[in-house]
This record gives sequence, structure tokens and C-alpha cells, in this order.
Amino acid sequence: MCAAQAEVAGSPGAGRVRGSSGSLGSERPQAEAMVLCRVPRWSVGLWASPGWWRTTCTLRALVQPKRGPGCPGGASGLLACSMFSKVSSCTPEVMLTQERYPVQRLPFSVVSEEDLAAFERIVPGRVVTDPEELEVSNVDWLRTARGCSKVLLRPRTSEEVSRILRYCHERNLAVNPQGGNTGLVGGSVPVFDEIILSTALMNQVTSFNSVSGILTCQAGCVLEGLSRYVQERDFVMPLDLGAKGSCHIGGNVATNAGGLRFLRYGSLHGTVLGLEVVLADGTVLDCLTSLRKDNTGYDLKQLFIGSEGTLGVITAVSILCPPRPKAVNVAFLGCPGFAEVLQTFSTCRGMLGEILSAFEFMDAECMQLVQQHLHLASPVQESAFYLLVETSGSSTGHDAEKLGCFLEQVLGSGLVTDGTDGTVATDESKAQALWALRERITEALSGDGYVYKYDVSLPVERLYDLVTDLRARLGSQARHVVGYGHLGDGNLHLNVTVDAFSAALLDTMEPYVYAWTAGQRGSISAEHGLGFRKRDALRYSKPPPAVRLMQQLKALLDPKGILNPYKLLPTQA
Amino acid sequence: MCAAQAEVAGSPGAGRVRGSSGSLGSERPQAEAMVLCRVPRWSVGLWASPGWWRTTCTLRALVQPKRGPGCPGGASGLLACSMFSKVSSCTPEVMLTQERYPVQRLPFSVVSEEDLAAFERIVPGRVVTDPEELEVSNVDWLRTARGCSKVLLRPRTSEEVSRILRYCHERNLAVNPQGGNTGLVGGSVPVFDEIILSTALMNQVTSFNSVSGILTCQAGCVLEGLSRYVQERDFVMPLDLGAKGSCHIGGNVATNAGGLRFLRYGSLHGTVLGLEVVLADGTVLDCLTSLRKDNTGYDLKQLFIGSEGTLGVITAVSILCPPRPKAVNVAFLGCPGFAEVLQTFSTCRGMLGEILSAFEFMDAECMQLVQQHLHLASPVQESAFYLLVETSGSSTGHDAEKLGCFLEQVLGSGLVTDGTDGTVATDESKAQALWALRERITEALSGDGYVYKYDVSLPVERLYDLVTDLRARLGSQARHVVGYGHLGDGNLHLNVTVDAFSAALLDTMEPYVYAWTAGQRGSISAEHGLGFRKRDALRYSKPPPAVRLMQQLKALLDPKGILNPYKLLPTQA
Repeated sequence: MCAAQAEVAGSPGAGRVRGSSGSLGSERPQAEAMVLCRVPRWSVGLWASPGWWRTTCTLRALVQPKRGPGCPGGASGLLACSMFSKVSSCTPEVMLTQERYPVQRLPFSVVSEEDLAAFERIVPGRVVTDPEELEVSNVDWLRTARGCSKVLLRPRTSEEVSRILRYCHERNLAVNPQGGNTGLVGGSVPVFDEIILSTALMNQVTSFNSVSGILTCQAGCVLEGLSRYVQERDFVMPLDLGAKGSCHIGGNVATNAGGLRFLRYGSLHGTVLGLEVVLADGTVLDCLTSLRKDNTGYDLKQLFIGSEGTLGVITAVSILCPPRPKAVNVAFLGCPGFAEVLQTFSTCRGMLGEILSAFEFMDAECMQLVQQHLHLASPVQESAFYLLVETSGSSTGHDAEKLGCFLEQVLGSGLVTDGTDGTVATDESKAQALWALRERITEALSGDGYVYKYDVSLPVERLYDLVTDLRARLGSQARHVVGYGHLGDGNLHLNVTVDAFSAALLDTMEPYVYAWTAGQRGSISAEHGLGFRKRDALRYSKPPPAVRLMQQLKALLDPKGILNPYKLLPTQA
Repeated sequence: MCAAQAEVAGSPGAGRVRGSSGSLGSERPQAEAMVLCRVPRWSVGLWASPGWWRTTCTLRALVQPKRGPGCPGGASGLLACSMFSKVSSCTPEVMLTQERYPVQRLPFSVVSEEDLAAFERIVPGRVVTDPEELEVSNVDWLRTARGCSKVLLRPRTSEEVSRILRYCHERNLAVNPQGGNTGLVGGSVPVFDEIILSTALMNQVTSFNSVSGILTCQAGCVLEGLSRYVQERDFVMPLDLGAKGSCHIGGNVATNAGGLRFLRYGSLHGTVLGLEVVLADGTVLDCLTSLRKDNTGYDLKQLFIGSEGTLGVITAVSILCPPRPKAVNVAFLGCPGFAEVLQTFSTCRGMLGEILSAFEFMDAECMQLVQQHLHLASPVQESAFYLLVETSGSSTGHDAEKLGCFLEQVLGSGLVTDGTDGTVATDESKAQALWALRERITEALSGDGYVYKYDVSLPVERLYDLVTDLRARLGSQARHVVGYGHLGDGNLHLNVTVDAFSAALLDTMEPYVYAWTAGQRGSISAEHGLGFRKRDALRYSKPPPAVRLMQQLKALLDPKGILNPYKLLPTQA
């Protein structure tokens, strides 16, 4: 109906800060990871906080790079790992992944001058070999993983991606697909010298249907740009992340991003209607339909949603956008205990029903840290737990009335400890102030010391028991053991702060946290994925037959294993 | 939180008639298919209509069974196909599928007495070989497909299913998984002598979490029973079908049923949280988590949703249930043209937003047939198109007000031709009367003659063009060419009525309808699946690389091809 052809990329400085999830989780990356030269688009508001910035700098560990044994220098000095010494002095070096972790390079070919010439023929002028330019794509956002790729390719079309992969497949060259590089598990950067295949120039909107709300676009469109694009047409993207100013829709789909609208609009497995994917051998798999219903054969696109670039490279996406809500309200509440949190959630679902769009929780220790390190004031009296409830609907009056009835109910029944006027926000700035209490927890934690982080899914009624148990287990070894997250999604962010990193303390927590989660049939990675760092913990959430089938699927779709190697699947024995 | 152990099966006579979809589509099976001895649970209200019943009986074609060449008699006369002669005389015989269609039996083993003894050890007392009992499971609901299976097994547990499949895999015996046998494409019955593996006794609810609304149950639970179960706990199932009184949740998932709540709650790919599946070799694949978020490896369960029993047997399901709406309103409207239908849909999405739960349309010829054959009166003045809009929300007053504003808008702008008081129903009986106009179209069509049926997905703005084009193409060869369906889902039911079946007319429509649909990148099967009958039309909706990957997945998961053979994938050249 309303076809469009527009370029959609993020604009620096346009980022909105909201306490986020998806490929970035609802936690912001640890403060220690930040560096001056690499402020991502989505974090402008936050990183401006001067007190926190100072903390960041003192905490940062500077590690000198070394030339790793698995990082082939090849024939050309230009391509060798020593390139990192040329990087601007304002960027501290990050230890090579191959040095930090026990990982062996697989026997892929090494990129040669002939390969570079071949790539130049496929994507003329878009073959990047300059070490400084490569630095940004070799290091992950958290600055805890670093590859030593010698070449980055910037295709503009699926056909170019197909030709690149066909070539790499024949030459046995490993490839690291990369979107906005905002992942938290080391999945978006090379481990060794994999060729980086960036979707950054694949940023065209192909079509938007203003009757059905179905958007079709290339994989490199930045989420924030898409969001603006559809909002101008009175729709919203079904997902929203803190990383929206940088992350690519293709990366969102590849990592099955959750995000702030998950409670309301559900998983990408439901909202993504079609995908175009280039397979490891260069075959273009066109499942890019824009249909809500299609029962013709196996739903192949589902295989690639959440496959973290290991089964194919997503080059285009078709996604269903819901109508834009006309009214948004936020309430901030205190609860005397976790049982009351759960009862409030049940009441909320029943009374707010279709307009409920977020149900977030944080514990008292989170609030203490937010008050102590960020000097934010709690709008409600001191409580064991705090809740942030958001509604989004099509009628300001109706939504306010529903929220009012809900508040009357929970206050009257003693589920909620405080109901002053200050707890409800109907205007945007007040709503943002309430959201800040929940969203800036990570920042407050970073100000408290070194932070160990876990992101788990649990049956909602056991969600907080893990925090209590770990707190008891660690005793005085930890400064704080805190729990917060998307209660409505059963997603807990468990964080432990200490004076400084300790391997012994890590051993006290791992695999304890994973085993505890497995004991509840939970997920050891709710929304961050496995990437490089968590791949060996997969067995805590999936039984051996499932892991075996995953390995078989990988072997079927990528028999040479060239796509994003060392990621998602556990190290083979 | 609220674990439960309850048996959930359908109760005869408890079926509610609503114009349905999913494994049964939104069309009821053709009237000619009905027989007295086999009135399904879900159709009680409808089949009671005496005039229609007489039509049914006169239209029915009686075909004598013959012993087919591909139907091995084996060593035992008891097991031979001649058993059909023993079937009660009240049931007309249906032609064997192997005789009606050009299909060759694959070289599977034939069930022997030793096999029966082995099965008796696995599921003692639950090995059915009585021909009369087998009749119901050998013939599909439409009575246009008939297998000649000699044995039906009724396991109660996943472990029993596993032992059965392990045995069949070793012995190279083909298996036809069967739920409620309500499919419309011949997918749920054997084509030759496949062993029927029924989920009917696997009907236990395992748990229900009253905080999260997550239900876990065995695959054989009847949808209506589950619906009652969760409604008593103030939730609803995220899907609802006309076949709810008979269909099994496992079958719903295996066929990726759409249904009446699709517009509101989306696809099973989003609402199904976990599955337990037994693979062809008997391996139990336990992906039965009850988590909203889980990004640990490939989402394997997605492979089995919509795989029509060809990749594994679903034995248990975990599914997210939304809160039960407190208010339901229905409006019936007339529109002067299809452009106005589309504009009304856009307005509706914008103004009703989160409470919109159905947006159905029918054309003027549908209304004529409903009036002519069922003597139902239209509540609005004569129009080119008619719309049924349903809202479901948490507030009676708010929903009525929203609906009122929407009606005022569309009436005022001339999008809708009539707005008398009779068009809106807030009480259940009046709502049902309005729904009947849309739901009983199939019944009216059956009264009009022989009916050719198509179920396609199309971009919503082209939805009706196919009807217009086919009407022009057929001219006076057809009595009526009508279009109706789930406009909100882009799902058109295209039906053609004629005096009697004609192969020549079929050739005029096929592959024309499929090619037309393919030209719009539509789906030749929106919600019915491919089963046996449409498997060779797959290529109209999926490109060769996709079909090839489907075949590779089948070979990976079921290397001997024993699971539901002759279904979903096209005949190999």
C-alpha cells in the first residue's frame, strides 16, 4: 500500500536512554568497559553523568595486547596483529580473546592478498584493512573480547553477501557476521582472524504497508531509525532496546533480542514474518514473505532467529509493527515482600490486561545503591521491593482510569506499601524520571565496585529465591547481592558487587548459579544469548539430545563451520 | 504456583459453533462430507439444522472401497484391507487415497503378528486392530482421504511413544501420528497402511502457573477442555478453533493452527514456550521449558511447530495463556467497496488498538447465499461487503466507548454504509447471532452445490482481487465465486460453487489460483497446511532452495522417512 525506499541508520546523539535489554540486556554494560573514544550512540544521556564517568576511568583495567599464537601474521606485515600498536593512544588495549580464554584456532585458511583482491572485485572500495578502522569491529562493546581480524567487508546487497560467502566457503575462510556490535557475550566480534562481514551499508527500507503494519527492510537498518520511520506512520516497532541507536535489526533477529516491549508484543519468533538469509555456501534463502499466516512447509526462518549468525547471514527482515499507543502511564510502587510482588503482578495482569506494557522490579539493595551512588530519591517509602508498572493504550482517559482502579485495589489490600501522588506519571518527563530509578541500577552497581553479572530466566515464583540463596552463600564476601529485572517476563538480573575481581569468588558462584538455575529448569541466558563466553554453559539449560541436534543442524547448514565459529555451540570434546 | 493434575478431554455435545479456523480453517468442511455416524463434537449446534442436513445427504457421493495394490494384506486376513467391508452400513465408503491419487507405497515393512505382540508389550490393552474401530481413524474428517492401517496404538506417556518409535524405526515401519483427526488436507490419516499413533490417551494437564499463565500439558488434551480449565482460572487459551471440541493441542501445534484469536494473540510460534517431542528413532527431545525468555542455543521447538508430524511426534506442550477478557463486543457493518473495507480496517486498528480481537469480512454473494439457503436476515442494509468487528478487553464501559467512537468515525466518513442500532452486540446471544452470519457461510455454500475451496494468504490490499479475477475467468461456468475470511490476518477463503464436480473446471482453476497467489508472494495454504493433498503445490509458495532445505531437515531428523510419509514435502521426482 505504502511502499517506501529510505535509508535508515542511527544518528549520533539521538539515542534515548532506557533500561533496555535484548542484545544488550536490560543491564547496561559494566562501567569499567567504557572508553572515551567509543561512546555508543545510544548512551549519550547516561554517559554525560560526570560522577559515574570518573568511577569508570578508575575501575578500568588496562591490558597490553600481545601477538597471539592463533593469530596468523600471514605474508603481509600490513595484516599482522601488530596493527593494534598503531591504535590511537586514547583507547586502552583489550586483551586478545585467544589469550584470555583457552581456545584453539580451527584450521581455516588465512586471508591472502589474492583474497583481498577477490573481495575488492565483489565489493569495490568497501574492503577495510586499515588497523584503526578495524579496531572498532575487532573489540566488543564491553571491551572484554578482542579478535585480530585483518579485513572487514561492507556489502550493500544480498547478492554481494552471497558472492562473499560463496568465495569464503570455497576458500575455507571463517566469517564473523556483524551488525551494530552491541552484544554482551562476545558473539559479535571475531575470536581469531575471522573476516568481519558488516551489515552497516545494508540499511534500506524496502516497503511498509500502512494497512497491515508490515515493514520489510535490509538487515543493517538501525533499530532507532526504523522506530522513527514507523512512528511517523502511526505504528511502533514490536521491540525496543537501550541499544536502539546502534543495533541493527538483523542483529536483533539473529540474537532474538527481547527488550522493553517483550511483555506486550512478545517474541521475535512471533513478530518476524519473513527473513532473507544467505547460507554458508552463498545460497540465498528467500523466506522474505510479508504474510501473517503461511503454513506451507517447515517455517525455516525460525531456525535463524536466535542462531547468532552461526547458521546463515540474515540480509533482510519482514516484521509486523503494532499500532502506536496514544497514551503511556508509569506507576512506581513499594511492596513489603516478594509474595506481594507476585500478587501485585497477578492483580495487574487481571485489571490492566491489554494495556500492561511493562512490569519491572528491583529490590531494596538496588534502591540503596541508586540513592547512594546516583543521589536519586525514591518516590515511595522504604520497602523490601519496588515495582515499575507501565501501561500503553489507545485512550488516555480509559488507561488512567484502569490504572487508578488497579492502584486502589492493591493499596487497599495492603499489597503495596505506598501510594502517594508522586508514584504515578502521565507526562513523559516524569515517566522518564521513574524509569531512571530502574534503568540506572547498572550504573549505580558499577559505582559500587567490581560487578559479577548473571541474566537468567526462572519460573516467576522462584525468581527471587536465587538472590536470597546466593546472598546467604556469599555472606560477607560480597558487598551487595542484588536482584532486579523484567518480572513480567520471568527475567532476573542478578548482580554481585565486590571490592575487586576474585577468581576464588567466581568459583563460589559458578557453576553454582548455573546449576541452581538448571534445578528450576530455568535458562542461564534469558536474552543475552551464548556467544563466545557462555557457550560452554549451554548444557545447564539444554539436555544432551538437544545439544546434539543443534550440532547436527550446524553441520547441515554450515558443514565447514565457517560462520561465526567458536560461538553458541559448546567446545567439542 | 498452582500445579495441577487433571484429565482434559472433550465432552460430547459441549462444542460451541464458531466460524473457526486453524487445523479446520475458518471454513467448515464441506457438507457433503458429513455422515450420521460421525458427527464431531464441535458441530452439534450446526448439524442440528434439518434443512442443511438433508442437503448433505443428497450431495454425498458413495464410493465403494476396493483393495488397493499398495495396501498389503500381509500374512493375516485379520489385517487385510477387506476389513472395510465389515464397517457398519450406516457409513458410506470412502475411496482409498491410493486409488484416488497417483501415489506409490514406499518400501516400508508390513506390520506382522510379531510386531503386534511387541506393541502389546509396550502398550498393553491399547493396541487396536478391530476394523470398525480403525475406520474412524483411517478416514479423514472431510471423508475424501482413506488409509488402510491395520493397527492403532494408544500410548499414555512419552516413554511409551519413545519405545513405539524406537521399535518402528528399527523395523522400518511407517507411522501416522494422529490427534483429533480434524485436518482438512489429508494430513492426519494414513495414505497406505501406516501405523496410527494416537495421542488420545495423553490428556493430562501437568501444571498451570496462575501468576505467569503458563500451562503445561500432554499433547492429547482436547483444546476445549484446556480452554475450560484455564478459563476457570481467569485465563484464556491463546488459540480458539471451531474444532475445539475434538482437536488436540498437540495437533494444533503440529499443524500451526491459526484460529479465531490469531489477530489478537498471534502465532503459536510466539505463544508456545516449550515442547517435548519424540524423534523418529525414539529419542525424547525435552524442550518443555516454561520460560518466556530463553536464548540458549537454537530454538529447536520451532522446527516442530507446523511440521505436521513429519519431523517428530509432539508429546507435551507448554503454552502462554493471556488473561481472560472481561468484555466482548461485536459490530456488524456494511461497506460500499473493498477500498472502504481496507480503510475501515486501518481506522479500526488505530482506534480500537489493543482491544481489537477479530476483523472478518464477507462479500455480497456470501450474504445472498446465507439469506437464500439459511434464511438469516442481514442486520444492515445491502452492501458490497460486510464486516464483523470484535473487541475483547478488560473494561465493559471503556470498550463500548471505544467501539462507539470508532463507529461514529467510520459512519461519519462514509466508509460504512449502515449504522443502525442492530449492528452492535454486547450480550452473548446477540453476538453469536452476528457471528453466525460469518460463520455459517460454509454451510450456505454447501447448500448451493458442489464447492471448490481455497485458503490463501495475500497482501491485504490485493486480497479481494483474486476473487474478482477468478469470477471473470469462470464467467457462467460457476454459480457463485465468493470471498470471505480473516481480513485482519490477510487470510482469504475463496470458494466456487457449481452444479456438480467437473475436472475440466478444476483445470481452469488450478494451477491458476496457485500461480496468481504466487505472483503476489502469497501463501497457497494460510492455515490448513499441506498434508497429503497440497504437498505438490508447495513450490508455489516456497523457492527451490527452501524446499531443498526442508528435504534436508527431513532427512536429518527422520532418515528412514517413517514419520507421516507422503505428507507436507512434494513427491520426489
